[in-house]
Amino acid sequence: MSTTLTSRSHRGIDPSGRPRRVRVGIIGATGYVGGELVRLLARHPNVDLVGLTGRGRDHDPIGGVHQHLATLDLDIHAELPDDVDAVFMALPHGAAADLAPGLIERGAAIIDLGPDFRLHDPGDYPRWYGFEHPRPDLLELAVYGLPEFHRAELSALVAADIAIVGAPGCYPTATLLALAPLARAGLIADLVVDAKSGVSGAGREARAGLLYGEVNESVKAYGIGGHRHVAEIEQELAEITGREGLDPGANPGIIAVDFLPHLIPMTRGILSACHVRPTRPITQAELDRLYATAYEDEPFVTVVANAPATKDVTASNHVRIHVSLDERTGRILAIGVEDNLVKGAAGQAIQAFNLVHGLPETAGLEQLPLSP
Amino acid sequence: MSTTLTSRSHRGIDPSGRPRRVRVGIIGATGYVGGELVRLLARHPNVDLVGLTGRGRDHDPIGGVHQHLATLDLDIHAELPDDVDAVFMALPHGAAADLAPGLIERGAAIIDLGPDFRLHDPGDYPRWYGFEHPRPDLLELAVYGLPEFHRAELSALVAADIAIVGAPGCYPTATLLALAPLARAGLIADLVVDAKSGVSGAGREARAGLLYGEVNESVKAYGIGGHRHVAEIEQELAEITGREGLDPGANPGIIAVDFLPHLIPMTRGILSACHVRPTRPITQAELDRLYATAYEDEPFVTVVANAPATKDVTASNHVRIHVSLDERTGRILAIGVEDNLVKGAAGQAIQAFNLVHGLPETAGLEQLPLSP
Amino acid sequence: MSTTLTSRSHRGIDPSGRPRRVRVGIIGATGYVGGELVRLLARHPNVDLVGLTGRGRDHDPIGGVHQHLATLDLDIHAELPDDVDAVFMALPHGAAADLAPGLIERGAAIIDLGPDFRLHDPGDYPRWYGFEHPRPDLLELAVYGLPEFHRAELSALVAADIAIVGAPGCYPTATLLALAPLARAGLIADLVVDAKSGVSGAGREARAGLLYGEVNESVKAYGIGGHRHVAEIEQELAEITGREGLDPGANPGIIAVDFLPHLIPMTRGILSACHVRPTRPITQAELDRLYATAYEDEPFVTVVANAPATKDVTASNHVRIHVSLDERTGRILAIGVEDNLVKGAAGQAIQAFNLVHGLPETAGLEQLPLSP
Amino acid sequence: MSTTLTSRSHRGIDPSGRPRRVRVGIIGATGYVGGELVRLLARHPNVDLVGLTGRGRDHDPIGGVHQHLATLDLDIHAELPDDVDAVFMALPHGAAADLAPGLIERGAAIIDLGPDFRLHDPGDYPRWYGFEHPRPDLLELAVYGLPEFHRAELSALVAADIAIVGAPGCYPTATLLALAPLARAGLIADLVVDAKSGVSGAGREARAGLLYGEVNESVKAYGIGGHRHVAEIEQELAEITGREGLDPGANPGIIAVDFLPHLIPMTRGILSACHVRPTRPITQAELDRLYATAYEDEPFVTVVANAPATKDVTASNHVRIHVSLDERTGRILAIGVEDNLVKGAAGQAIQAFNLVHGLPETAGLEQLPLSP
Repeated sequence: MSTTLTSRSHRGIDPSGRPRRVRVGIIGATGYVGGELVRLLARHPNVDLVGLTGRGRDHDPIGGVHQHLATLDLDIHAELPDDVDAVFMALPHGAAADLAPGLIERGAAIIDLGPDFRLHDPGDYPRWYGFEHPRPDLLELAVYGLPEFHRAELSALVAADIAIVGAPGCYPTATLLALAPLARAGLIADLVVDAKSGVSGAGREARAGLLYGEVNESVKAYGIGGHRHVAEIEQELAEITGREGLDPGANPGIIAVDFLPHLIPMTRGILSACHVRPTRPITQAELDRLYATAYEDEPFVTVVANAPATKDVTASNHVRIHVSLDERTGRILAIGVEDNLVKGAAGQAIQAFNLVHGLPETAGLEQLPLSP
Repeated sequence: MSTTLTSRSHRGIDPSGRPRRVRVGIIGATGYVGGELVRLLARHPNVDLVGLTGRGRDHDPIGGVHQHLATLDLDIHAELPDDVDAVFMALPHGAAADLAPGLIERGAAIIDLGPDFRLHDPGDYPRWYGFEHPRPDLLELAVYGLPEFHRAELSALVAADIAIVGAPGCYPTATLLALAPLARAGLIADLVVDAKSGVSGAGREARAGLLYGEVNESVKAYGIGGHRHVAEIEQELAEITGREGLDPGANPGIIAVDFLPHLIPMTRGILSACHVRPTRPITQAELDRLYATAYEDEPFVTVVANAPATKDVTASNHVRIHVSLDERTGRILAIGVEDNLVKGAAGQAIQAFNLVHGLPETAGLEQLPLSP
Repeated sequence: MSTTLTSRSHRGIDPSGRPRRVRVGIIGATGYVGGELVRLLARHPNVDLVGLTGRGRDHDPIGGVHQHLATLDLDIHAELPDDVDAVFMALPHGAAADLAPGLIERGAAIIDLGPDFRLHDPGDYPRWYGFEHPRPDLLELAVYGLPEFHRAELSALVAADIAIVGAPGCYPTATLLALAPLARAGLIADLVVDAKSGVSGAGREARAGLLYGEVNESVKAYGIGGHRHVAEIEQELAEITGREGLDPGANPGIIAVDFLPHLIPMTRGILSACHVRPTRPITQAELDRLYATAYEDEPFVTVVANAPATKDVTASNHVRIHVSLDERTGRILAIGVEDNLVKGAAGQAIQAFNLVHGLPETAGLEQLPLSP
Repeated sequence: MSTTLTSRSHRGIDPSGRPRRVRVGIIGATGYVGGELVRLLARHPNVDLVGLTGRGRDHDPIGGVHQHLATLDLDIHAELPDDVDAVFMALPHGAAADLAPGLIERGAAIIDLGPDFRLHDPGDYPRWYGFEHPRPDLLELAVYGLPEFHRAELSALVAADIAIVGAPGCYPTATLLALAPLARAGLIADLVVDAKSGVSGAGREARAGLLYGEVNESVKAYGIGGHRHVAEIEQELAEITGREGLDPGANPGIIAVDFLPHLIPMTRGILSACHVRPTRPITQAELDRLYATAYEDEPFVTVVANAPATKDVTASNHVRIHVSLDERTGRILAIGVEDNLVKGAAGQAIQAFNLVHGLPETAGLEQLPLSP
């Protein structure tokens, strides 16, 4: 690889001593996640937003696509400039895997918000997403961008030649953070995840099923029998528990995730309710200690005693986790809530980006939740 | 009991041969369920709505409480007239148990929409509702008013001296109808019920947590660790399965219901997602047959192949049930949707009332769902 | 015209003495208005719904298009049967004008819910709708289907060879009913109509601007500077006031309607706030008398003392009207609320249909409003 | 007054040269506006939030009242500390007028978000708010805190002994900014303001009419015949136009504001539609120039060519203004949209506070709007 690449790879170093600036581009700036990236990165203290691309648009002002961002002096172009330090990609599955190699050649760090770099096993792509991954070699280098799980690996990318982050899906983020302390303690014998999401998770494309008149005053399940996010959830739980895999048939007591998402009449927010049958009896006090310890130093995760609402974290990178034991049935309930477009997408990607570039992890993500 | 009572007890007979008229009163007409009873009964072809009472009001026109019903020429009074044939009660728990005996004395059939006559075991009242039931003898007579479960017993009340119906709770209705075919076939080994309800289920009293600004754009769980409706669900499932009880500790494999309700930003509607680990492997085809057979003759229950939305049944007495097997995990998902104020409350109570009075079961309940 | 036509034209006569049946077809049954027509007509006591057509579908069950109507045993076909007595059309502008002549030939009454038969002046079509009307001769025969304005003309169609009803637009209905008593009394000197509509008025086609994520938690004006419904409003106000026209430049003091609609984050409902500067000072008592007299015998219009909410009339054919004088400024506020899909579309069309066929005006429209 | 007061009154001077810090207290931190003040001030670069009080609470953590702010380490106390530099008050009318004098004695700048210091004429308080103002002398000193109207006067408070800001009401902000260019040009002959607000403007107190079930899927007008915000709107328009007053009877052609607010099923946002009959014919081009000139240097006001939605400015201090001429009727439509809790309350108060303390006007208010 080129000299340029080598010099860029020291992403955390700024010999001048001045506040560090990172030149950032966004590919796929016209969707909801793209808009959220622009909103947050335009106010990030260390970022120069030098390029936006999206869906067949060129020279369009950002306000033409995202009316709320019309006061920003930014245009969407057909191409990013050559000298970007980092590229966020918010694209349909399969697209980022095709574009990433060229960007890596140019020395850019890749923060992909789609699924193309989340899964380690190339065989998962045809199985869950219906395409053959074109670069299994890059999958090996990619880090799953959940900082609470992989902080050290993300930080190590500061000095790596190639930096690829597969930012987690919206459901896996809330689910994995709710379950991690139980998984690490080997406590999950059986698992049902019943999740609820606002409609922004379905994207911005005009579909009849997402019209206001269809969504308001209604709730429905979808993705019955196998939502794609199961692949990530099982991958990360397996990694934590140190097991080879989670094939439910292979081993009694092995975790197989029953995952059911619902479409809720709201725009932002995910609540993931994880119903866990534990491997052994446990007390509420033990659960409380487990969770308090797990998250005491996390800047964005708060363990709460009462049932959290998605509105408690709207417009912020915060996650709230609640855990409780049903003494009558012996089952554990672990709930996680997030804003699907922030901690579930753009915010979390920026959190990983900060680590990859040696910036403070919370840079650009200090906003408090918005309520009511 | 009196001659009057005896003559009234032949609820289904109209010797004149004219269309049957029933004189109906409502106690507790000022809440949401009360309003829904008025809305439906005012258009019921066999009902004369002869009395409404509610919350310290007297001589108030119905439109003062329920603005949408202002065109009805009905007032709320402090007392019902003496000669009512049937009384619907929509009251906080404990109140109906106190009022029912006097009404029974007067020969009226009782359709209680609260929990006071739903549970057969008097011990369940202090345990789940915090009060001692004043008339355990009446509990023995009361019929759980889910026509799809107890049609024959409800119809038998036509000729009974005393007719008491404990109309089911909103969550149990959707949940029990979703689970019944599995329960009857002895297929439920393990059960998690994750339910979602619109806010009208929480009633009409002004509480800060139910303000629009708190509810919209948010979802949260509540009743964690023991919602009261568990008692009904377990009672009815136990009755179906023929087991003594459902104490999860007593017998491995016995059903204990893990039930978690959520508050959804919508007004009407309940979706109950029942995650069932079956007692034996089963195929989708077998499930389809089981459900088709169970509901083929039911006027208000429809089995659907695709995930139903609560909006599919809004403003109607319909329930839609979906069942599917997750082949990967072996678990069964059974979903029921209803309008919590109709099939989950007022409509179902009227359905039971029709049976108790020998009227066509669907009388006054023919409305099609309202969408969008 | 044929004998068949002649015999059909006596729409109100049923020599057999049995309850009158009308064979009805719907062209354009797949949109929101079409669905609402099906919902109401399927329960109309005098209607046999013999044919449905819609958007390139053939042999599709109604439940495939309108999931809430899946329990009806009705299919959508490419063509209506030949022997329909009446046809409702819910089509984009221009389409009904093309189809109507053929249906009239076959003797069917036409109830058009689009604009093609609302305006009397053929010149209004190119001006407001951008097309030349193909049959100005039929425009002369068409009756504007607002029964509160044109009841006698609608009833006269019972015996007419050709029956064409141009059912009013959603905004004009609420607006005209709010203004009629003032207009008849010659009291309108200056008029601003500021209207608010739920999104179902924009139809069911997938458009990005109507996605839940765009509509919820937002309000915006649209149609600035000339919404098409102005044409109807001015036509009917001019007819009432007896003036040649309402050209604001022609005559000081002549009514020109400033009409501004807004898109509100709700599905159903229109509220039209009419700000009127009166031609002379007036008292509240006089206004009250004027409105009470105007609407005392109307089955669907209620004058209310307090500000009405759209929810007061949801799912019903009711309209509520409020009028009040601002003593400080001397201006009159007249407010009308309706369900845009019922009284603003399908319900009103059925009301007109009833008159055209000599049926009771309220047949099939007795539903009470739905709230909460 | 005391030496302390004098030294504090030089609010803009920091002799040390370090970044300026201001010690800020909030009285009334428990309502929606109070919560929004905390949310914004906790992230304000120049503010130390040293005290919060609210509704009978003492030592309660902020998260107990505002769950979304639970990660802040702030408690609510019965009293503010003595040495606050500035106090924001978000209280029911009448309360701030009582508390302000004591705080002024202690040298604090007062930013009142209620109406107690908005109106210059003491006679307006009994008339519009039903109480006698206890300190008319302070009314004379108070500045109406709309920076776009009174920037110089607000900045002059840096050096004043007493600094009192009456931050504008939510409706007047959007309305006045929409109308100002027309008013300054003497173009308003007749004015109807038809405004729409989310429910957060009604506050956080539990009232049945604000329950989700009542508000969703409904719209209604309120405050018919004289909302209190009319007083502010007329005061400021009169000041601009240089007229003595706006008594509609006094002078033909004088502005009297017909103001009608509506409750919209959304949480945040106000849209004010101002229907103006101009004093003389005008062109769209002239309007465009007028508005462009008026707002070209304003940091928070943007003039837009298309109809703005409230969602375009949610969670930000931005206002968007649209103006258009209806050539057919000759009337001008001027629309303003804002987030009622930010530019309509807390954000605008902070903007004024910044000016009063010699801070950059946009400090702490740089957030971009949140959408979807």
